[in-house]
Amino acid sequence: MSQSFINRDFILTNDTAKKLYHEHAEHLPIIDYHCHLNPQMVAEDHKFKTITELWLGGDHYKWRAMRSNGVDEKYITGNASDWEKFEKWAETMPYCFRNPLYHWSHLELSTGFGINKLLNPQTAREIYEECNDKLQNDPSYSARGFMKRYNVEVVCTTDDPIDTLEYHKQVAESGFDVKMLPAWRPDKAMGVENAQAFRMYVEKLSEAAKMNISNYNDFIDALQNRHDYFAKMGSKLSDHGLEEFYAEDYTEEEIKAIFNKVYGGKALTKEEVLKFKSAMLVVFAEQDHEAGWTQQFHYGTIRNNNSRMMKSAGPDTGFDSIGEFATAQSMAKYLDRLDSRGKLAKTILYNLNPSANEMVATMLGNFQDGSVPGKIQWGSGWWFLDQKDGIQKQLNTLSVLGLLSRFVGMLTDSRSFLSYPRHEYFRRILCNLVGQDIENGELPYSGYEAERMNQMIEDISYYNAKRFFDF
Amino acid sequence: MSQSFINRDFILTNDTAKKLYHEHAEHLPIIDYHCHLNPQMVAEDHKFKTITELWLGGDHYKWRAMRSNGVDEKYITGNASDWEKFEKWAETMPYCFRNPLYHWSHLELSTGFGINKLLNPQTAREIYEECNDKLQNDPSYSARGFMKRYNVEVVCTTDDPIDTLEYHKQVAESGFDVKMLPAWRPDKAMGVENAQAFRMYVEKLSEAAKMNISNYNDFIDALQNRHDYFAKMGSKLSDHGLEEFYAEDYTEEEIKAIFNKVYGGKALTKEEVLKFKSAMLVVFAEQDHEAGWTQQFHYGTIRNNNSRMMKSAGPDTGFDSIGEFATAQSMAKYLDRLDSRGKLAKTILYNLNPSANEMVATMLGNFQDGSVPGKIQWGSGWWFLDQKDGIQKQLNTLSVLGLLSRFVGMLTDSRSFLSYPRHEYFRRILCNLVGQDIENGELPYSGYEAERMNQMIEDISYYNAKRFFDF
Amino acid sequence: MSQSFINRDFILTNDTAKKLYHEHAEHLPIIDYHCHLNPQMVAEDHKFKTITELWLGGDHYKWRAMRSNGVDEKYITGNASDWEKFEKWAETMPYCFRNPLYHWSHLELSTGFGINKLLNPQTAREIYEECNDKLQNDPSYSARGFMKRYNVEVVCTTDDPIDTLEYHKQVAESGFDVKMLPAWRPDKAMGVENAQAFRMYVEKLSEAAKMNISNYNDFIDALQNRHDYFAKMGSKLSDHGLEEFYAEDYTEEEIKAIFNKVYGGKALTKEEVLKFKSAMLVVFAEQDHEAGWTQQFHYGTIRNNNSRMMKSAGPDTGFDSIGEFATAQSMAKYLDRLDSRGKLAKTILYNLNPSANEMVATMLGNFQDGSVPGKIQWGSGWWFLDQKDGIQKQLNTLSVLGLLSRFVGMLTDSRSFLSYPRHEYFRRILCNLVGQDIENGELPYSGYEAERMNQMIEDISYYNAKRFFDF
Repeated sequence: MSQSFINRDFILTNDTAKKLYHEHAEHLPIIDYHCHLNPQMVAEDHKFKTITELWLGGDHYKWRAMRSNGVDEKYITGNASDWEKFEKWAETMPYCFRNPLYHWSHLELSTGFGINKLLNPQTAREIYEECNDKLQNDPSYSARGFMKRYNVEVVCTTDDPIDTLEYHKQVAESGFDVKMLPAWRPDKAMGVENAQAFRMYVEKLSEAAKMNISNYNDFIDALQNRHDYFAKMGSKLSDHGLEEFYAEDYTEEEIKAIFNKVYGGKALTKEEVLKFKSAMLVVFAEQDHEAGWTQQFHYGTIRNNNSRMMKSAGPDTGFDSIGEFATAQSMAKYLDRLDSRGKLAKTILYNLNPSANEMVATMLGNFQDGSVPGKIQWGSGWWFLDQKDGIQKQLNTLSVLGLLSRFVGMLTDSRSFLSYPRHEYFRRILCNLVGQDIENGELPYSGYEAERMNQMIEDISYYNAKRFFDF
Repeated sequence: MSQSFINRDFILTNDTAKKLYHEHAEHLPIIDYHCHLNPQMVAEDHKFKTITELWLGGDHYKWRAMRSNGVDEKYITGNASDWEKFEKWAETMPYCFRNPLYHWSHLELSTGFGINKLLNPQTAREIYEECNDKLQNDPSYSARGFMKRYNVEVVCTTDDPIDTLEYHKQVAESGFDVKMLPAWRPDKAMGVENAQAFRMYVEKLSEAAKMNISNYNDFIDALQNRHDYFAKMGSKLSDHGLEEFYAEDYTEEEIKAIFNKVYGGKALTKEEVLKFKSAMLVVFAEQDHEAGWTQQFHYGTIRNNNSRMMKSAGPDTGFDSIGEFATAQSMAKYLDRLDSRGKLAKTILYNLNPSANEMVATMLGNFQDGSVPGKIQWGSGWWFLDQKDGIQKQLNTLSVLGLLSRFVGMLTDSRSFLSYPRHEYFRRILCNLVGQDIENGELPYSGYEAERMNQMIEDISYYNAKRFFDF
Repeated sequence: MSQSFINRDFILTNDTAKKLYHEHAEHLPIIDYHCHLNPQMVAEDHKFKTITELWLGGDHYKWRAMRSNGVDEKYITGNASDWEKFEKWAETMPYCFRNPLYHWSHLELSTGFGINKLLNPQTAREIYEECNDKLQNDPSYSARGFMKRYNVEVVCTTDDPIDTLEYHKQVAESGFDVKMLPAWRPDKAMGVENAQAFRMYVEKLSEAAKMNISNYNDFIDALQNRHDYFAKMGSKLSDHGLEEFYAEDYTEEEIKAIFNKVYGGKALTKEEVLKFKSAMLVVFAEQDHEAGWTQQFHYGTIRNNNSRMMKSAGPDTGFDSIGEFATAQSMAKYLDRLDSRGKLAKTILYNLNPSANEMVATMLGNFQDGSVPGKIQWGSGWWFLDQKDGIQKQLNTLSVLGLLSRFVGMLTDSRSFLSYPRHEYFRRILCNLVGQDIENGELPYSGYEAERMNQMIEDISYYNAKRFFDF
């Protein structure tokens, strides 16, 4: 009644959970080791014109919800006014009961703007105006302002090898005390399905590396050159978006010939594409291992399923979904290929289809080599799975099939400067689960074990990531 | 103790759930938009000789339970007497603890017959006699009587294009105030695996449509003719039973040639079968879109796995089970094929294997186009999944990956006149989940949001279906 | 505080659960119908030098946890001292919060050694010494001593057809009152991928059966000879480790030719391998059916994924994991092949990937023939799934899709003489689930139904297995 919806004990249903959260999770800084922030907006400390720009400018979660609710595209990616778009979102909001958007949005209003009203058609106007007023008139509501408000310590963006990283440089030189590091995402360097696009990419790579590329060896050298540059700029992670793992057999000679063929503008066979991708995944991994980085793999999406909307609204606008791939054997073969030659870097595996949860969770153990605690990690609930149910399933399955204690924890994977409350959301869920187990007598909580338990919460919230990535 | 097993608050474990159910779900009429009732039994207002006929005459769920319990086939589909069969079922009942049959059966006894005793060998005789007495002597225990008792407003049966729909006509003309509408199930019109059966089917279709069929165009015209007739008779839905989605590439010429080949009695290759099915799925969809109907797809079964019992007891006798199909890509391709040419009708997708839950739940969003709220629906827990655990998983996953608020809710999918309590069961489960979230503070429940929450329960129970199907 | 972690009501969160467990499960003997105990250790009543030998000598669960925790292989399978290894394990233990090892290990310390301290670096030394003292000085802490302590009635080991079973004989003749029966595991008799290894195996089989083997018929006769011997020695079960089910079409002539080819040292094609395996699965099944045994199938693993560790540490050292196989159709075809010729033995199906849970649970019903209650069984949570979450999922899914009442229950699948508390763990979880349902009003618990409920708990804990396997 008098208590606001987002309150001190949101999600925390038992006393131990409250204690764990408030004493051991709440106040720790955020390490957001994988996100899609626009570095330019940080460099320029972007000011947002309206909450619509901030909230609805690029959030395909909200767009999908609006489309499902019967909202016309005009109010989503179309040319309606900011207010009109916000109004439609406010109308949709009360239809989002039980969807994570309902929690996320109110967490963001509450922690980002200090607004504890619930968003609905009746409150839309006043919330819109209060947000806009702060965004337009209070300098602490800028891109950097939000990063400071949420106690962010490090963010890792997602960058193409050909990126100049000029904004990262600017930010580093500006003295901004949130570290913004680049991360290496070389997907296009194995995008040989389209010969023309690949050719263009190689040319840009050649420019970026200031190196001539006329054959496969040059190509790899240029990539290595950029990898070195990323490392110099503080990069500690790579990331790869895959449908499935590629682990075909191939010879060096074959790969060279395939490179020449595709670079010469000829379409490859499906088998050649798979061989080339298989080879590149090894090259990427070796570069990461050499540099002491962590490699991330996000697999299992089917993308751009709506060709009509692909044409009108472009990629990444909410028309991707969960695929069904059986990749256990090739994943194992790939990781073994690296491990057997002593080249397996620290690795994080993210699956999109939760029916692969147990497969991935047990894959880790095949390649834990005792060199680093939790060397092979299972990524936190990704994309569609980044919600209470998905997070709980990942935490529960990781717990029973691996070591929860060694988990590097949460990331936003977001382009929004307002997504940081997802770390809070995650920590609350984590503390709630562990608290429940303690209260049920399934975990001990006194003496040595209580200290370890508290430390486990702090580790998963912050310290594990800090140590693991060496920030 | 004094309280009966099936009581006012069955399944409802918290106060908010009780309020939601009793005030907003319990008293709403039933729209059973997909079932397998026998229209003739409604037309003739069938009287049941015994509870055995009503309960055990065609219920493969109960048959499977009895077989698992070691009951000889004689007492299941064999020639034992009605009492003997009922007795064996009564012996099996107490071995069904935790199986939905235990809940369903007692719900049916309680709400259908006013019997609140638990069925077991000790109570079997008296329950048998009480039920039979009512069935034989009280006219309100007829087919129509049960439909009235359960406050049914609309039922949609499942009918072949060649069906005359004479019983639907009789019922409509009889002034019976439950609407019984046909639904279009053209599976056999793409059943080209068996050339002979297909030929016979086409001949019957020709008769039904009173049109000559000598080539593919004629065939489609005849189907359209029947589709128009179904529409005239009030049909608003189609339904398709698939193993997986078929989305092969094909040309019109190829399909015409395939039709000629199979109609000429020649066996098709596997590839030809897939092409033909792929083409027919598009034809069916276009007809539905044109008519403003909703198309339903039930996929993922493996059927008639026991060839011995197939020979002796026939199909649909309890020897089907959950298959493992990876159909995400073809499902997306199929829906995109329709969407891209502006021909995608309202659609309901039902998966049989719950490991595809998240895949299907995220597929919806790819094709929500804002024209109708919840245009693409994920069907309620189907067949084996139509039980508390399965329903909860569907509701929870739909909630986090889509908009629960727009869900068209429950259906029986049943041939029994006593299956309507499954709507009650579903509503109780729904209210219980939502009530729990409210009591945990994960959903708000005051002011504007309380009204919306109440309305959401009413919508999912009744109004969404009424609006969506335009009944 | 004063209460120890493993206490009387561990896992039991409600009063009904406590009653069910303490009155109906706790005191029943253990039938461990599938395990990997070393028969020689029983025959010789092995004494353990240290808790390290007993706990860490062969337990790949603990090894995986240690590797995940960053422990060097030296302390796992390497040449560190027993104390050093134990110390590393004690350091790892508090990082196992929420992993089943935390529960299992403390259950084992508590029920096996009467030690109720929690294992951590501070308690490591005293626990190490107390355990060793008992193992070295108290004769009741021997292999047989543990079996007696845990009230074990029957164990079935896992044995190759060529095994002499001399230790089984010794045990039987020794008057030891725990029955140790062999079980038939003929995997190598279909291991035709490697011609040389197969040839060697056939030669050993020839010796064991004291029969010449020069063709396929001889081979089958020799297997039958050994099968008869196993039966004479009390065997009641077979077991098969499969990636997936093999149900290719083949002719007797083909199989004979394939046998000759591989026995002649020639590598088979992939198709020949599949045909041969398909044929052998039928032969095995027919032998079991003839003998009235129960056949077990464990499928879905991917093994030896780490080739480096395979070379240094060998197989079964913790580098296997959950595969992704779609085997529903071949499983159905195989079982139907047997059923249709009246040769389907009692069967237990174990899946490793829980995403197949519902598929397997519904497969059972296709082949329940009423001859034996629960003739086709779904095996208890296997390997990675043998933990609270996995056990609950198996019990819940079995409940809603089959008859929990007829379940033959738990097994250890273990090589350790200290794994028997897993039966206790399972029984507690079972009672807890059933108790919850009763307290929620979802199951009745008075009069006739209360007696049946109590009996159900006793049946699943003990009597079902006793009857089903005919011990």
